[in-house]
Amino acid sequence: MSDKKKIYKPKPISGYPEYLPEVRRVEQQWLDHIRRVFESYGFCNIETPAVEALDVIAAKGEDVDKEIYVLERLQADPDEKKEARSGEATTGKYKEARLALHFDQTVPLARYVGQHFNDLIFPFKRYQMQKVWRGERPQAGRFREFTQCDIDVINVDALPLSFDAEMPAIVHKVLQGLDIPSFEIRISNRKILIGLLQAIGVSNVVEVTRIIDKLEKIGTNEVVNALIPLVDPDDFEKTDLILELAKITFSASSGDGLLRDFIARNDVIARSASDAAIQLLNEGIEELSFVMKQLSHLPNVVADLSIVRGLDYYTGTVYETVFVDDPGYGSICSGGRYDDLASSYINKKLPGVGISIGFSRLFAKMIPHLETGRISPADVLVVLNSEDDRVLSAETAKTLRDRGFNVELYHAPQKFQKQIAYAEKKGISYLWMPPYRDTTYHEVKCLTTGQQEKADPETWQV
Amino acid sequence: MSDKKKIYKPKPISGYPEYLPEVRRVEQQWLDHIRRVFESYGFCNIETPAVEALDVIAAKGEDVDKEIYVLERLQADPDEKKEARSGEATTGKYKEARLALHFDQTVPLARYVGQHFNDLIFPFKRYQMQKVWRGERPQAGRFREFTQCDIDVINVDALPLSFDAEMPAIVHKVLQGLDIPSFEIRISNRKILIGLLQAIGVSNVVEVTRIIDKLEKIGTNEVVNALIPLVDPDDFEKTDLILELAKITFSASSGDGLLRDFIARNDVIARSASDAAIQLLNEGIEELSFVMKQLSHLPNVVADLSIVRGLDYYTGTVYETVFVDDPGYGSICSGGRYDDLASSYINKKLPGVGISIGFSRLFAKMIPHLETGRISPADVLVVLNSEDDRVLSAETAKTLRDRGFNVELYHAPQKFQKQIAYAEKKGISYLWMPPYRDTTYHEVKCLTTGQQEKADPETWQV
Repeated sequence: MSDKKKIYKPKPISGYPEYLPEVRRVEQQWLDHIRRVFESYGFCNIETPAVEALDVIAAKGEDVDKEIYVLERLQADPDEKKEARSGEATTGKYKEARLALHFDQTVPLARYVGQHFNDLIFPFKRYQMQKVWRGERPQAGRFREFTQCDIDVINVDALPLSFDAEMPAIVHKVLQGLDIPSFEIRISNRKILIGLLQAIGVSNVVEVTRIIDKLEKIGTNEVVNALIPLVDPDDFEKTDLILELAKITFSASSGDGLLRDFIARNDVIARSASDAAIQLLNEGIEELSFVMKQLSHLPNVVADLSIVRGLDYYTGTVYETVFVDDPGYGSICSGGRYDDLASSYINKKLPGVGISIGFSRLFAKMIPHLETGRISPADVLVVLNSEDDRVLSAETAKTLRDRGFNVELYHAPQKFQKQIAYAEKKGISYLWMPPYRDTTYHEVKCLTTGQQEKADPETWQV
Repeated sequence: MSDKKKIYKPKPISGYPEYLPEVRRVEQQWLDHIRRVFESYGFCNIETPAVEALDVIAAKGEDVDKEIYVLERLQADPDEKKEARSGEATTGKYKEARLALHFDQTVPLARYVGQHFNDLIFPFKRYQMQKVWRGERPQAGRFREFTQCDIDVINVDALPLSFDAEMPAIVHKVLQGLDIPSFEIRISNRKILIGLLQAIGVSNVVEVTRIIDKLEKIGTNEVVNALIPLVDPDDFEKTDLILELAKITFSASSGDGLLRDFIARNDVIARSASDAAIQLLNEGIEELSFVMKQLSHLPNVVADLSIVRGLDYYTGTVYETVFVDDPGYGSICSGGRYDDLASSYINKKLPGVGISIGFSRLFAKMIPHLETGRISPADVLVVLNSEDDRVLSAETAKTLRDRGFNVELYHAPQKFQKQIAYAEKKGISYLWMPPYRDTTYHEVKCLTTGQQEKADPETWQV
């Protein structure tokens, strides 16, 4: 019958990664590790629906002009479709909000905190590890479905700066426990650059920070050329000053001397007419120095004043994380502090700080290097000698399972060699042989060493 | 600034459950338990994208006429939208398949096996625990986003019957480990009813099985009234026979005597002109008896001939699971054997057997009865006595964390009572007090017993 049917040969969908069981197994281990670290710092988990009302996303603002998938019922009647697409309730029959897949976990967090404010305990420390979707046109290397692992702390009115230091410490512990190349966590504080710009009278802050953000990607010359017309076409000194700041880096052990020297050395800053700007600048330096001091036990954390992050909602500390030998791969883990998370949804000041691991990008880069020999979660394969021995084999498997082992019972009384080959193909380490014919004892064979010995399912240890 | 902004007050979206952290915590524990049991039987995990090409779903057939959400890019240009909606590539500019959210995990499994056939090891034993979506009009108690926990075994050409017995054993172990009321797993084999219908010359099998499926819900009288015109308006004996079969139940210990008696007693079956029908009937009885015998150690598993499952693709064993005191809540865990999983996608005969736990429905029913006192995953809250003691507190937290405890460090040097209250509100069991002022030792207080004692972070045990 099956060969008469029309066959639809399925193809991968661009941007939607899907893995074989042996790769998925490692992915699960990585996600478990991340979750364990997050919980070891007392972060609780939340999960939000895959969708938000489109109005919720629109209220939050940023990035709404692109990348969003909206849902439509395949069998909606024409009036319902028309209303859903226009967003206007013309007939009054379809009162439901238009739904869209979430494109990050920050908008859902903000909405969640706004909606459940009275039921949460602050500071609200949550982690969230879900898929997000971006409806980009398909292109190589771009995911349209991917997993992010986020931690954020939200508080009411004010949030202690110690959390700004805790975020990179947690991420450091996460990344250290994964089999990835050397990484570097880079930290800055946006108040420093913004304070400097205000002090020297540069007003188009957003454009300037966007250009600084590209320093690593496009290089000094390009950045200078792009900055001069924005900053002051007639006074190159200001552009030089901005660039000089952006090139400052220091470690916790070397301290913030370079940065403080830079400020002290430049009269133009001291001569600023704006006390507020100077105050912001100094606040940023104090905050960055505090955060760096807290992280002094972590050698691969550096202060890097070129880090600004493109997203406009960050107001203080900002983070990026790159591979030391491949910074061009981009940041695998980014975040920062924001003054005001949920003001689109609730009339409260809720400052927060958060960091997000771009899990799918990180994992995808490492796939060629993973050890994926183990396909099955089973530790032991119990041999089935004959149909008559099924009860014995099943009971042996049960005994081992009750003792905490993952155990597969071979399904058919096939040749011994076939059962061994199956275990080897699936990466199962131990082959268990219950008593057969004239034997009265169990035996277990380690398939990696080849060693075989008598064993008792009630007491056996690996 | 925040009070000048327009506030969009978020509302829950009907059919999309979302939980507070304390409920989500229990949900995660349940899901972890299910995963552990699945893996203890050697099932590997796969995860498929949230979407399938609409053509893939259409190729598979069933249920496509409803419930499906299709995706549309919010910012697609009008040509792209038009083509996406019509499904026809009129301009040739947009070659991409139309995407739809999956509405179960069986279609994705079939597509996955078809697509990755050459890279999988058979019998392919996989579990899958993901969200699925159904675009139903909102109504009370109906989920539009929900989690299913599925296990299936797929093989090439033939699949041993022992797997039909392994499925309910696994589910039994899962459910036994969850804090839920008494349940009963009901098993039948569709070959028995179908064989009987063929033997007595009833041809509209699909309609008849659909009516039998409603026996528990609508009762005997309604079923008889619905069956008579379908079966034979002039010969009530046939309807009686069908109903008599459907009412047979037996346990492994009582054995299949009632069922065999029923067949032996009824001449009309023996007199059947169709040997094939009789063979099918007997095959079904043998299979059901074999499965029941394998499960004889599980008292709450019964054979129940009224179980037929509505889905047409089941061809042998079928399962349902109900709460003993609330069978009307419907089946929380169902499945069965199918001869031919993936013939829409690959020219192979791939029989399988699977079972699916309707996790979200099960969990939602139990929410009012859950113990949700523990909001935080932290075992210990480390007190912060003063800003000067931050390093000491942080190091204490780190020591405990490195030893495997989940530890939250209190964020501000606030009053001791406030720090205790925070731990109590979050359900953290232990309060850790590092040395302070004139003391030289650590102390730990158990917040459930009130007991307080000296402790060393390097050696402390709960």
